[in-house]
Amino acid sequence: MAPITQDGQTYEYDLVVIGGGSGGLACAKEAAQLGAKVAVLDFVKPTPLGTKWGLGGTCVNVGCIPKKLMHQASLLGEAIHDSKAYGWELEKPEKINWTKLTESVQNHIKSVNWVTRVDLRDKKVEYINGLGYFKDNHNVHVVMKNKKERTLNSKYVVIACGGRPKYPDIPGAQEYGITSDDIFSLDREPGKTLVVGCGYIGLECAGFLKGLGYESTILVRSIVLRGFDRQLSDMIKLSMEEKGVVFHMGSKPQAVEKLDDGKLLVKWTFNEKPEEVHEEIYDTVLFAIGRYALVDDMHLAKAGVNVIEGKVDVDINSKTNVDNIYAVGDVLYKKPELTPVAINAGRIIARHLFNNSDEVMDYDDVATTVFSPLEYGCVGLSEEKAIERHGADNIEVYHAYYKPTEFFVPQRSIRYCYLKAIAIKGGDEKIVGMHFLGPVAGEIIQGFAAALKAGITMKILKNTVGIHPTVAEEFTRLMITKSSGLDPTPATCCS
Amino acid sequence: MAPITQDGQTYEYDLVVIGGGSGGLACAKEAAQLGAKVAVLDFVKPTPLGTKWGLGGTCVNVGCIPKKLMHQASLLGEAIHDSKAYGWELEKPEKINWTKLTESVQNHIKSVNWVTRVDLRDKKVEYINGLGYFKDNHNVHVVMKNKKERTLNSKYVVIACGGRPKYPDIPGAQEYGITSDDIFSLDREPGKTLVVGCGYIGLECAGFLKGLGYESTILVRSIVLRGFDRQLSDMIKLSMEEKGVVFHMGSKPQAVEKLDDGKLLVKWTFNEKPEEVHEEIYDTVLFAIGRYALVDDMHLAKAGVNVIEGKVDVDINSKTNVDNIYAVGDVLYKKPELTPVAINAGRIIARHLFNNSDEVMDYDDVATTVFSPLEYGCVGLSEEKAIERHGADNIEVYHAYYKPTEFFVPQRSIRYCYLKAIAIKGGDEKIVGMHFLGPVAGEIIQGFAAALKAGITMKILKNTVGIHPTVAEEFTRLMITKSSGLDPTPATCCS
Repeated sequence: MAPITQDGQTYEYDLVVIGGGSGGLACAKEAAQLGAKVAVLDFVKPTPLGTKWGLGGTCVNVGCIPKKLMHQASLLGEAIHDSKAYGWELEKPEKINWTKLTESVQNHIKSVNWVTRVDLRDKKVEYINGLGYFKDNHNVHVVMKNKKERTLNSKYVVIACGGRPKYPDIPGAQEYGITSDDIFSLDREPGKTLVVGCGYIGLECAGFLKGLGYESTILVRSIVLRGFDRQLSDMIKLSMEEKGVVFHMGSKPQAVEKLDDGKLLVKWTFNEKPEEVHEEIYDTVLFAIGRYALVDDMHLAKAGVNVIEGKVDVDINSKTNVDNIYAVGDVLYKKPELTPVAINAGRIIARHLFNNSDEVMDYDDVATTVFSPLEYGCVGLSEEKAIERHGADNIEVYHAYYKPTEFFVPQRSIRYCYLKAIAIKGGDEKIVGMHFLGPVAGEIIQGFAAALKAGITMKILKNTVGIHPTVAEEFTRLMITKSSGLDPTPATCCS
Repeated sequence: MAPITQDGQTYEYDLVVIGGGSGGLACAKEAAQLGAKVAVLDFVKPTPLGTKWGLGGTCVNVGCIPKKLMHQASLLGEAIHDSKAYGWELEKPEKINWTKLTESVQNHIKSVNWVTRVDLRDKKVEYINGLGYFKDNHNVHVVMKNKKERTLNSKYVVIACGGRPKYPDIPGAQEYGITSDDIFSLDREPGKTLVVGCGYIGLECAGFLKGLGYESTILVRSIVLRGFDRQLSDMIKLSMEEKGVVFHMGSKPQAVEKLDDGKLLVKWTFNEKPEEVHEEIYDTVLFAIGRYALVDDMHLAKAGVNVIEGKVDVDINSKTNVDNIYAVGDVLYKKPELTPVAINAGRIIARHLFNNSDEVMDYDDVATTVFSPLEYGCVGLSEEKAIERHGADNIEVYHAYYKPTEFFVPQRSIRYCYLKAIAIKGGDEKIVGMHFLGPVAGEIIQGFAAALKAGITMKILKNTVGIHPTVAEEFTRLMITKSSGLDPTPATCCS
């Protein structure tokens, strides 16, 4: 029987969520737990190469999860190398068995798809494998995988359609190129790879491919890791160059052609000399030039939902301009495109709608990590942003190079082991940004992100006793400011 | 020329530090940087086996540093095993090359000894390789390594003599047993090893030895990891048993005899049946039954310094009962025996004496980590301590099991991946203890230690957005309380 809602209107569902990724599923499950009748729609259009995947969205299938596993495989390559120095007697293998790796990764993803589906069933969320679009603000039409169609009538709708990678508008891009949607299940070795684009996705793909033994080159339009701290971003670039990744700065792809032997001839130009065309042959070309939100398929205009620069804007309750329509995840205008952000926001929407909660999603100081494979974790402001917001004279930057104990034995490069904390001058020096480059940066920065939320100052940080020997303790040892001009390189490790 | 001090008295030195470990060196260097004339005495008596080492104290030579390197070697053994599942084609070697490992470890230590010495010279601290003892509260007599003797006259003296492992009073202990002072430079493979004692040192030694491929057994007098959270300590024990370490609970060694083939016959009893003697043959017996402070050599009575239970007590300024004598590090009565604690306290003494600083050492909420090799990081109160201090009805324990993404591919045991946060009931739920069992726990807990110092509450922790996929983010996902009785096992990873 259809639920009867407060306003006297009768709807088939309390909530329909369009998109079964992290944000949509988190919202749907929380709503169902709170007693709402919920359906979630999920549908994946294949990539130009034909790659498709199951329930769970970008993170599980073609994002964080496979990325982290390939990163881990790359780190294990380094570990094998290290282990000889520690006395384990083995030879470093020439390269990875790509088939074994992708099988392992895909097996894990399939198990997550399965668990996700079981979890929906357990939590009484109806799962519909179909592409949904609006007929009006209360009616979502679905074309199901089996071609059947139906219309779902719902009091509330949450737009959680997420996004997909863009291709550049150049000859051969879609025919011969791949994206992060394809790489984690590629049915052949990537071989010598050209990555186009140097946001965190491009950088990470180039990084793990190199770590797995494949030559990798990045075409960078302007700068690496736009939006991240400049000093740290440049250090990441240097660390990757040290490992053999090639960067073509200020460059633009022009065409991809397939040669008779199946290899790809890529033509590109440097922005400085657009008339001079460069070319090189690669086995794989991976585009990571940005992502677009999947709004076009949704007929948002039919529901009256405004689209701004291809995205959907929401208020502090995650509500769109239409009263009964909310949005979450990568479809959002000017919000971080991160899984835990979407999960938190999704749950808060559900509690707002079905539990009268007045919680609002806190988008401030969201920590993030880049796996290059050198890891870079950060939370709060970059140095540039801090200067922009507070003025160069009003901030103090504490920084240090450090030497991980474990790096000495295998003589690993410590050139890019670096951290900094950015604080407001005066008083106890409130910290507004923390940046860490080195091993397990993602694990390290999480606790400091919590500390930042708790209002940590340099005074508190200096009073925190370190855990020795870790690399995280370096934050507690920070005492050199950039403004002092003193050498931020440590002399000794333990005194 | 001898410095003339404020009180009109003339002393040869402003400060003599007895003991060149982490705390003593940190204090000496900071004092010298502040303009004081400083000498530091360091001397290592060989172990019964004959092991000795250089400048830097326990941490550098026979403590944290070699321990962490052997832990790392053990983790690399696991990494090699994992890497096959990730597609790296190699065989796990049967065992480690012990000679190569100890050489690597010792080479690193020697480089630290050297850097430490250069650092002292650069900072104008006089280093004297000799055993110092008090003639009175201003005069320290030194018997140098080259047998020469001299007396140093100083305004202030810092006792930083540290401690050494105890041997049990049973036949054969000193003749045939070793301690953590010997294991990291042992000139033969340890082979099948019996560890006596199950504080963190014994546990860690047994853990890395097993990880390196040696059979290891622990004789536990009463409980594992006394003083740590009981639930987590028991989980560590289970995780080690899963890896093959044998625990003899409630047992006591009785004798060690050397057999004709050089192997060691160990006799022990269980506390329950002291008349029944058990015996087994081992290659190595390692005693880790506790440590004693090196106060006996120092003639503290000559200076009037009181000794309490073999240790030295200090006030909030680290001053002993004698006005010009301070103490730091493992010699202290009822203070955590941890390197960063000693370093911080040492520096604060120097600033107090030579820079009129009113800082006091903050011994609250010092985080620590046990490497078993499963890592356990914690800060603040154990659950038992929290109940004792606040009452069981006034605390709320949030807990969760979790599944590290990287563990799925190699099908590693996730049985002991667990965390909890202990909070005071009511209001925003102030957090008083955090505990994490799993990969890189030491790195993870450091930031949360800073957050605890900054006054973190459960409300703030829940508002902190996770970094996905990490294991540290599990703290931000905590929502199940023990009191609810709900299942703390997660269903899905990414929604």
